Amino acid sequence: MKKINTAPISGTQELTPREQAKFDRLKTLISSSYHQHGFLNIETPTIERTEILLAKAGGETEKQIYRVVKTSSAESNDKESLRFDHTVPLARYVVEHENDLHFPFKVSQVGVNFRGERAQKGRFREFYQCDIDVIGRNSLPIAYDADVIATLLSTLLSFELNTPVLARVSNRKILSGLLEALDLVEKSKDIFNIIDHAEKVTPEQTKTSLEELGLEKDIVKKLTAFIDLNGERSEVIKSLGNLEISNETFSEGILELDQVLYLLESAGFKEQAIADMKIVRGLDYYTGTVFEFILPEYKNIGSICGGGRYENLTKYFTDKSFPGVGGSIGLTRLFYVLNECGLVADKTHLLDYAIVPVSENEFDEAMIVARKLRNKKYSTTIVFAGKNLGDKLTYATKVSKNGIVIGEAEINSETLKSKNFETGETSEININAEANPEDFWAD
Amino acid sequence: MKKINTAPISGTQELTPREQAKFDRLKTLISSSYHQHGFLNIETPTIERTEILLAKAGGETEKQIYRVVKTSSAESNDKESLRFDHTVPLARYVVEHENDLHFPFKVSQVGVNFRGERAQKGRFREFYQCDIDVIGRNSLPIAYDADVIATLLSTLLSFELNTPVLARVSNRKILSGLLEALDLVEKSKDIFNIIDHAEKVTPEQTKTSLEELGLEKDIVKKLTAFIDLNGERSEVIKSLGNLEISNETFSEGILELDQVLYLLESAGFKEQAIADMKIVRGLDYYTGTVFEFILPEYKNIGSICGGGRYENLTKYFTDKSFPGVGGSIGLTRLFYVLNECGLVADKTHLLDYAIVPVSENEFDEAMIVARKLRNKKYSTTIVFAGKNLGDKLTYATKVSKNGIVIGEAEINSETLKSKNFETGETSEININAEANPEDFWAD
Repeated sequence: MKKINTAPISGTQELTPREQAKFDRLKTLISSSYHQHGFLNIETPTIERTEILLAKAGGETEKQIYRVVKTSSAESNDKESLRFDHTVPLARYVVEHENDLHFPFKVSQVGVNFRGERAQKGRFREFYQCDIDVIGRNSLPIAYDADVIATLLSTLLSFELNTPVLARVSNRKILSGLLEALDLVEKSKDIFNIIDHAEKVTPEQTKTSLEELGLEKDIVKKLTAFIDLNGERSEVIKSLGNLEISNETFSEGILELDQVLYLLESAGFKEQAIADMKIVRGLDYYTGTVFEFILPEYKNIGSICGGGRYENLTKYFTDKSFPGVGGSIGLTRLFYVLNECGLVADKTHLLDYAIVPVSENEFDEAMIVARKLRNKKYSTTIVFAGKNLGDKLTYATKVSKNGIVIGEAEINSETLKSKNFETGETSEININAEANPEDFWAD
Repeated sequence: MKKINTAPISGTQELTPREQAKFDRLKTLISSSYHQHGFLNIETPTIERTEILLAKAGGETEKQIYRVVKTSSAESNDKESLRFDHTVPLARYVVEHENDLHFPFKVSQVGVNFRGERAQKGRFREFYQCDIDVIGRNSLPIAYDADVIATLLSTLLSFELNTPVLARVSNRKILSGLLEALDLVEKSKDIFNIIDHAEKVTPEQTKTSLEELGLEKDIVKKLTAFIDLNGERSEVIKSLGNLEISNETFSEGILELDQVLYLLESAGFKEQAIADMKIVRGLDYYTGTVFEFILPEYKNIGSICGGGRYENLTKYFTDKSFPGVGGSIGLTRLFYVLNECGLVADKTHLLDYAIVPVSENEFDEAMIVARKLRNKKYSTTIVFAGKNLGDKLTYATKVSKNGIVIGEAEINSETLKSKNFETGETSEININAEANPEDFWAD
């Protein structure tokens, strides 16, 4: 009988070993893809000084910060808190360790963040966020924007989801320049918001929202035409030119977008990366390239990855200038929704071998064989427990792909048989072929 | 100029990318070794209900628990806290997910724990703990004790520290039985303590401490002889027999110790695993096998790994019985001390390739070559930034083992040269050999 409620707290992920293996596979793919693309991994402490977090946080985020309080301390203090994202700790890290870093600093962070959100389905209070960023000192070439998007695309493609992945890319300068040219800067906050929500409403509703701002008909027409622009690079670039906007920021944005998408095409991502003027990514942070990834066949999932270019990572912490570009995969949420859609492969949870000694007399032999298999990088367990051989074999089939029974007969004949539990096929192993470990395993 | 203190909070680990690569290498070796030995990975939330943690915690530990408080909540509450070890969450997990698990449940946990200790050199408030446990339902064969020790030994040997690793193994039943037989059960707490500290004082001081308990001379002599027993299995087992103690628990402990060490010998660890009667491992938790690992050439480091057999993992949470055996590597502390001794290899922080395009005209070609290298699992970065070629090459040597310059000449000749920055050697790459990716790289 249970003496206490043993459920994990709400808003956290706790998986069975089988589901955990699926999750861990994605996490490992992310880490190794980030590394392959030249990003250096760092890890900042989970606990930060509250003043560091509050430097950037504000509004909703500030309310969601978890304070950390030592039980034994007499007075309550709020000096330390749990990080809510990787960006603020990264900014602190770059300022603190500047002299140990080589710029541009290509950096990855894979770890847990915390937000005191109201718990609801698919929303997490403790969640993995997997970030990459390229941080320049004073300046950073636009090509790194393509580098970041290519890395995230490769990473998500490595999941082998059996459904296409699409990167939708825009540049905030294009919209900012457009609004400057149309003399709409004062209304830009509202217009940004309307575009940001354009996907969730009908085109008619977007038009109405723009009209309600008191805009003239031809301006609304121009804006809706702009919002609808998306597709292959050269076409969208051409259409943007056809808008006949004369503004420096606008032109600069187009040039940058063109460069980013051209480099992505060079890297072989012509199918996976398009221009899309609906991508805005909130109001504050981003200043150039912005992007969001979706699974076009599963639109209801929404964005599965996003990011962009920012003016200065460290403005709250130093007067120096560290421009950057970055993106993030929210792995806990992503795993949850991908799993709901049945898109995560389930093939990694079983061990390679389970060795089943018939009796205690073969435990030592089992240890020997297991060590040889492990030296060859096979995951291997020994089934020491079980009332009888049948019991042990049942257990073996639950945890492993293949089974090897070791009894007196097997030891005398110096030959072991491995059985594939899925196909039923057996193959022979000569346990004395020790000389060359590569030859040990009879194929 | 810095506007704010950007140091990480005290008692946490924050590493440069180069040091982080060393740390990550050890963490990856641990995870893959645990997996190879058949342990299934799980991850419990960092935040637990406080009542769960308090079920086992007590004394010092209880005072060290960090409460988690949401900023926006009006009243302070202490319902949620940060876990201080993996054992309590594992107990909760086993009770909660019992029906999804196969017993014996071989489980690994690699993650961060938190203790509000007073910060001091080499002591951490946030630290990685890397645990394995085998949990039985109602019973668990003694062979799993050898399984756990063999796994931890293999893991630590995989670090390739260039110094021996030694597992010192005992069994609590031997000492308990001895004290029963000598009619010293009432003083067992004091005697356990004295043995636990025997290593930190001279043999003479240990003798004095025992005498101060009011023990007779020949009893003290018997105990000190017992404490000094250590070495190869068969010899220690024989010496234990020579003590001529007639007690069931004592005999059972010897038998178990013999079995565990015999199986470790079978697995090839005769050199690395010895019997040692000084190993006690605290007072409460362990009931059978106990072990501690050391680096004999670096005795001042102390224990680098420890664990043992416990009666029932889940006694605070359920009436069912889940006996187990487990061990743990405290990675953050271990990395700290190994690094201080210069024992951690520093060879993993550099990328395989840095591609250096001479000008923007070769950025696209660089993207193509980089993707090919990454498809072959080489970690590769492209150096887009830098005032001139010399600048870019300097950066390349800082982040990578090899460099590939791509300029007009290289593209026209359809041949790229890769330079090993360490040896200065160059080798050729044919960038058009695409057909068979395995042949792409000219060896």
